[in-house]
Amino acid sequence: VTDSMVFINGRPEACVDPRDRGFCYGHGVFETMKLSAGQVPLWKFHRRRLLHGLAVIGICADATELELELQQVLTKIPDAGTLKLVVTAGAGSRGYRAIAPLKATTIFQWFPHSVQVEPAPVSLQVCQYSLPHNPYLAGIKHLNRLDQVLAAQELEAEDQGLLLDVNGAVIEALSHNLFIRRGEHWMTPRLDHCGVAGVMRAVLMEKVFPRLSLNVTEAYVELFELLTADEIFICNAVAGIQAVATVKTLLKAEEKNWRCHGETRRIRACLEEIYPCFTA
Amino acid sequence: VTDSMVFINGRPEACVDPRDRGFCYGHGVFETMKLSAGQVPLWKFHRRRLLHGLAVIGICADATELELELQQVLTKIPDAGTLKLVVTAGAGSRGYRAIAPLKATTIFQWFPHSVQVEPAPVSLQVCQYSLPHNPYLAGIKHLNRLDQVLAAQELEAEDQGLLLDVNGAVIEALSHNLFIRRGEHWMTPRLDHCGVAGVMRAVLMEKVFPRLSLNVTEAYVELFELLTADEIFICNAVAGIQAVATVKTLLKAEEKNWRCHGETRRIRACLEEIYPCFTA
Repeated sequence: VTDSMVFINGRPEACVDPRDRGFCYGHGVFETMKLSAGQVPLWKFHRRRLLHGLAVIGICADATELELELQQVLTKIPDAGTLKLVVTAGAGSRGYRAIAPLKATTIFQWFPHSVQVEPAPVSLQVCQYSLPHNPYLAGIKHLNRLDQVLAAQELEAEDQGLLLDVNGAVIEALSHNLFIRRGEHWMTPRLDHCGVAGVMRAVLMEKVFPRLSLNVTEAYVELFELLTADEIFICNAVAGIQAVATVKTLLKAEEKNWRCHGETRRIRACLEEIYPCFTA
Repeated sequence: VTDSMVFINGRPEACVDPRDRGFCYGHGVFETMKLSAGQVPLWKFHRRRLLHGLAVIGICADATELELELQQVLTKIPDAGTLKLVVTAGAGSRGYRAIAPLKATTIFQWFPHSVQVEPAPVSLQVCQYSLPHNPYLAGIKHLNRLDQVLAAQELEAEDQGLLLDVNGAVIEALSHNLFIRRGEHWMTPRLDHCGVAGVMRAVLMEKVFPRLSLNVTEAYVELFELLTADEIFICNAVAGIQAVATVKTLLKAEEKNWRCHGETRRIRACLEEIYPCFTA
C-alpha cells in the first residue's frame, strides 16, 4: 500500500518542471475528487468547473483528452480514496507573458481516504485574515491559494476556519462551502467577489435541495445572520455534508452552539440516496 | 552552452515534488536577480525582501544556509545571466494547513541574459485587468501571480503592461516599478494595497536619488498625473532603468508620447556608477 501515486501527462512520475507556469505563477486550476468503486461519481460537476476555470485563466486544454487520461489513471490506482487533478498552463520561458502557445500539464495524484465521511458535528473558528475581493477570479479553484494558507495558520487543531471577506460578510469555510437555515429558508453565501464555488455546493443546489422541495438562495450573509441561524452545515466534494455545532468568533469568549441538526440530516440522507458513496 | 540550469535544495536536478506547497498553493516567494562577474551585485537587497516575504507568509528558512547555498550555486553556473531563486514552504500532506513543520524548498535557476540593458525607450499599454487590493500581501513577491498573468494576456508584442488598481490608481508596470517626474519632483506609486516592491525601486530610493540630491516620494498616483508627467521610467533588478516613450490608454486612440529623457539618463548614469553591471 503506497501513500500516494502521481501521474503527470498520463505517465507515472512525480516530477514537476520548475519552469511550469503552475509552479512559477499558480497559473492553473485543481479539483479534489472523491474516488469510489473505481469511479469519480461527481466527475461531471468537477469537469464543468475545471473547464470553466481553465477558460477564465486562459489555458487551452482538450476536454476529450482529459477524459481519456482520467479513464486510464482510474485503471492504475486503487478503487477508493481521494483523487486530485491539477491542470496548469505548462512549462514556458521566464516571464508572465506566455510567448508561444504552451501544452497544458495534467497531474493526477491519488491519496488514500484521509477524510472520513464523519457525521460528528464540527467547530468553526472565524479567521482574522479576510478574503480580498477579486470578481474576475471569484469562484474559480485556481492555484493562487495564499489566502487560504494564511487563514489556516491561525487555526487550533480541531477547528475548521470560517472565512469572512474584507467587508465582514461570511463567505465560506476554509475548504468547504457553507449553508445556513433561518426558519424555512436555506441560504449560502454569494461568491461573486471571492470564495471558491464548490462542487458539492453545486450538487446540493442543483440536485438535492430541488428534490426535497427546499428553498435555497445565494445571498449576502452577515456574521450575525450566521450566529442567529437555526442550523448550519459545511460541505465539500470529499467529505460530503458536516453539521456545525459551534462557531467561535474573534472575541474568544463569544461562542455559539447548535444541538439540533434535523434538517441537515434530512439533506444528507437525500445526498446519500443520490450518491451512495457519501454514506457514512 | 545550456539554456538553463536548475539546483533544488543545493543539488543539480530539475524536479519539483507535486506535493510542494509552492506548486499546490503558491506558498512561496521568489527573486529574479542579475548575475554579473560571478556575483549577484544586488544580493543584499534581494535577501532582505526575500526574508521579509518568507516571514509574512509563515515560512521558516535559515538565512545562513540560504547564503551558503547561493555561494555554492555561484561556483557551478556561468558568471553572467539571470538567476532566479524560489523558496517555498516545502512538500507536505494535502490541505491548506501545514500539519508538521516543513523543510523549505530552495530552487536556483540560471538563465542566459534574455533581457539586455536596453536604453531604447519603451511603450506602456494600460491593462484592463486591475489589481485587487490585499494589504496583507502587498509588496511581497510571492508565487500567487495570476494577476500579472491575466494582465499580460492583454498585451501586444512590443508593449509593457501598465497596471492600475481597482480604484484606477497607477501601481506598476507588469514586471517593473515605475517612477514619474513632475517638475522638480519624482514620485513612485505607493504599494500598500497591491503591487510588488521591486529591488531596483529600493536601490533607487535608498542609494541613487539621495546621491543625486533628488526629491522622491511614494505617492498615490492617478492616471492623469502619469499622462501629464514630464518624464517616466520603469525599472527592475534585471533590466535596470528604461525610459518610457509612450503610454497607450484603454481608448486606443489616446496615446501620449515623450521625447525628453534627460533626468532619466542622469539617474541611469548614477546607477551605472554605483553598479557598473547595469551599464549598457
